[in-house]
Amino acid sequence: MQQAIEIALSAIDKNEVPVGCVIVHNDEIIACEHNMVEKNNNSTQHAEIIAINKAMKKLNSKYLDACDIYITMEPCIMCAGAISHSKIRKVIFGCYDMNNGCIEHNGKIFSKIKTNHTPEVIGGIEIEKCQKIIKDFFANKRKDND
Amino acid sequence: MQQAIEIALSAIDKNEVPVGCVIVHNDEIIACEHNMVEKNNNSTQHAEIIAINKAMKKLNSKYLDACDIYITMEPCIMCAGAISHSKIRKVIFGCYDMNNGCIEHNGKIFSKIKTNHTPEVIGGIEIEKCQKIIKDFFANKRKDND
Repeated sequence: MQQAIEIALSAIDKNEVPVGCVIVHNDEIIACEHNMVEKNNNSTQHAEIIAINKAMKKLNSKYLDACDIYITMEPCIMCAGAISHSKIRKVIFGCYDMNNGCIEHNGKIFSKIKTNHTPEVIGGIEIEKCQKIIKDFFANKRKDND
Repeated sequence: MQQAIEIALSAIDKNEVPVGCVIVHNDEIIACEHNMVEKNNNSTQHAEIIAINKAMKKLNSKYLDACDIYITMEPCIMCAGAISHSKIRKVIFGCYDMNNGCIEHNGKIFSKIKTNHTPEVIGGIEIEKCQKIIKDFFANKRKDND
């Protein structure tokens, strides 16, 4: 999770929403990404999507069933869907997202909706650090807009 | 929808699940794609995801709010999430998907779950043709495996 936090922090200067994501395979980090919505001018370029695509390319496999994903924030519906399709084994995330998070909120994708694959999920890891990154980012954004 | 059906049919020979997707902007088709899971060895490469990425690149815009999307089958959770992020105006789809579809089934994403953007949705267009493409594909798959 420390690596995911660091990559999230590195997104701030690039004006990307600071969410970081790391995918681990056999104790090795095979993808470490932050959101790239602004750089790629594409609203679907969340950290998880970029990391999943990278990991599949690296392993030359359409499934990541021997991989775990670490994310600084609870994933949205799109990313939870991509995690399910990829058959990722375990999802470890930092802070909760009351607005767009959909694992513990908004539909509770993995517990209430039928999906192809349901990963093990652990939320709330390094919750304070992860929450602070996002809170500070949006507080500064508001200040800039005042 | 006819174009989406044609691109779906063209996927069969490539052994891709035949779902087709077209994105229209100002009466012009700017993306016309089928699933590429097998070719790209990536389980997230659904027709909708590929088409949305292509359309954003073509319009050089992270939002597709002046676009409509035509899909031969009800989208899954991941694709419905991507449609919401992209702010696509209208979703027109063919047959329903009781297993993975999540607009009229499985969570009813756009009516029951809070999303950033809720498009207008019309389902069941050319339903018989669209259903037959998928049914025949999986029937032939089963025959090949017998």
